[in-house]
Amino acid sequence: MQTRFSGESKENKSNIHGGNIAKASKVYGIKPDEFLDYSANINPFGIPSKLKEIIHSCIDDIINYPDPEYIELKQKIAQYLNVGEDCIIPGNGASEIIYLLLSALNIKKVLIPAPSFSEYAIAADIHGCEVEYFHIKENEDFKIDIQKLSEKIKDGYDALFLCNPNNPTSVLAQKHDLLEILNFATKNSTLVVIDETFIELTANGNESSMGEHVANFENMFIIRAFTKIFGIPGLRLGYGIGHNKLIQRLWAKKIPWSVNTLAAAVAKFLPYSHEYLEAARIWIKEEKEWFYERLCRIEGIKVFKPETNFILIKLLREDIKAGILYDKMAREGILIRDASNFMYLDDSFIRVAIKDRERNKVFLKAFRNVLNEGEQYN
Amino acid sequence: MQTRFSGESKENKSNIHGGNIAKASKVYGIKPDEFLDYSANINPFGIPSKLKEIIHSCIDDIINYPDPEYIELKQKIAQYLNVGEDCIIPGNGASEIIYLLLSALNIKKVLIPAPSFSEYAIAADIHGCEVEYFHIKENEDFKIDIQKLSEKIKDGYDALFLCNPNNPTSVLAQKHDLLEILNFATKNSTLVVIDETFIELTANGNESSMGEHVANFENMFIIRAFTKIFGIPGLRLGYGIGHNKLIQRLWAKKIPWSVNTLAAAVAKFLPYSHEYLEAARIWIKEEKEWFYERLCRIEGIKVFKPETNFILIKLLREDIKAGILYDKMAREGILIRDASNFMYLDDSFIRVAIKDRERNKVFLKAFRNVLNEGEQYN
Repeated sequence: MQTRFSGESKENKSNIHGGNIAKASKVYGIKPDEFLDYSANINPFGIPSKLKEIIHSCIDDIINYPDPEYIELKQKIAQYLNVGEDCIIPGNGASEIIYLLLSALNIKKVLIPAPSFSEYAIAADIHGCEVEYFHIKENEDFKIDIQKLSEKIKDGYDALFLCNPNNPTSVLAQKHDLLEILNFATKNSTLVVIDETFIELTANGNESSMGEHVANFENMFIIRAFTKIFGIPGLRLGYGIGHNKLIQRLWAKKIPWSVNTLAAAVAKFLPYSHEYLEAARIWIKEEKEWFYERLCRIEGIKVFKPETNFILIKLLREDIKAGILYDKMAREGILIRDASNFMYLDDSFIRVAIKDRERNKVFLKAFRNVLNEGEQYN
Repeated sequence: MQTRFSGESKENKSNIHGGNIAKASKVYGIKPDEFLDYSANINPFGIPSKLKEIIHSCIDDIINYPDPEYIELKQKIAQYLNVGEDCIIPGNGASEIIYLLLSALNIKKVLIPAPSFSEYAIAADIHGCEVEYFHIKENEDFKIDIQKLSEKIKDGYDALFLCNPNNPTSVLAQKHDLLEILNFATKNSTLVVIDETFIELTANGNESSMGEHVANFENMFIIRAFTKIFGIPGLRLGYGIGHNKLIQRLWAKKIPWSVNTLAAAVAKFLPYSHEYLEAARIWIKEEKEWFYERLCRIEGIKVFKPETNFILIKLLREDIKAGILYDKMAREGILIRDASNFMYLDDSFIRVAIKDRERNKVFLKAFRNVLNEGEQYN
């Protein structure tokens, strides 16, 4: 029966990101909690114990609907970042914010510097947007060429999606560069969407955020999340920061109560979070250098210097490609991110998280073994 | 600055439903947990203790992303309802399912028998759909006239939204009537969306569900949720049931990971839920009759016979309207649902939940006092 509401169904898109332990568990017959998951970029510091306590203590509150305006959550985020409450909209992870942004602001044509987080293009496609890419080049160390990007913006886009620090390259753009892009985008009536999901785990943390400029640009929108930084991807809590005029338009189209009571309870942890984040940042900084340096010693790979808690690696050998490496590592109980489905990357790229010293040693040992094994087959 | 992504912002729509205790708390200076909330239609039996245990035990799992395919959750729902796994899609409450349905199936023109749950029309409006209403009349005891509705369907709609049992009237349509509508809708290529959010709390529970016909109709979609029946509106867990062809199209446009790990953990409770639901249903049935009968004794109101856990009431007096009554009851610490914003209802209608005997007695006392007070002013 051909009905009015008929249309083509698309392929299930659930397997394109890292962190799908359930799937890997099924394929490799290894229990989910026995995997070392280097495929998802979660703060290796783990869930703060105070936050866990808070969540336990709020379970009785699920008997009521969440506050549809999320007043407490907005207040606490506002204090955490020193921005106005009316510049904040909470969401079900960064994902809901991305989807909502596209539909609420009626965005029809987007520019995405790539390689970058694939969900921008997927969401844009779902919303029927035209997507164009701007190539961030490996031979420029995956740094954005500001002049070229500014030129490209002249072609006329409703929105530009910038991930900062960028996933999967782990490169952080500087604020003065972002301001230059913003000023140029303003002239061209282009919304600049900056995804700062990993910013707290960079060397200078929130100081690298563009949040302080939120009142100055009606065409800037910042995507944030607590997913990665508190190690809580299962809880789903993201938020958007933007000029109040933008935020109001998002509220008007938001799915009601989409942040559940237990995710919203993260508000109660925020006043206690600074110490935890400071410790995590210092620790990641040190571990990042150690892990990067050790990876650099391995032959046959190129390691890109990371500015946050994950590392992009290029396999230089012909005999081991990302898919094979994923499979071999998974058999060792370690999940890595096959990065071949990122735009402009190919099957010589993988992405790995940074965890604690003990686990990073386990990773390095398995990684070296698998690479050497490959060599033997050669 | 007029930008490409400009548009009209809409009014914040967060205050149109019941259950907004946070807001009431602010207005009336009463602590949220000190309110008796008769405005939201939650199972008065409360959260099952086994479910609470399960949620506590799953908090450590939020360190991983939810399974993007929700395999365990789908399996357990499939067993719970005896339908195929591939006919199920979980969502962030019934709300996400409604929003997703409209966008994924490209629905442009909808028919809504009303009064009914306002979120269908709000969501349709947000998605740019044309909305028409079919009047369910008070003088027909808010029962749908099947012949007239079938005639109306001929006008050509992409979707028809039926809430069963209906919110706010508490009227349950019979399966043979729904089948008649479905057959007629099939001929007219109209999708029939049946919202069964409250069905477990009707006298015959899931036996009144249309779920058994899911494989027979490509144009039927059932909206369900665990929100009301397990008393967990803060957790956000709904789902859709439909022909696999429809379900696939929804998966393709779904926000990833929108059901968080703790909401998905309800799966682990489902095998234990039958006893709890059976006890709740028997208990509600009895309390419903008692509460209805006591309300009927009060002069100056008309009480509509309920078929699930809430009751629609019409205020027959000129001196007390819904808004005033809401205010007076809130000052007594009791929230009711001012039902005047339901289509085809006016400010003489309120909706109240059914709770346990003790609280229903408190409600009745306050309700009678407030109504008598009104009389004195007359």
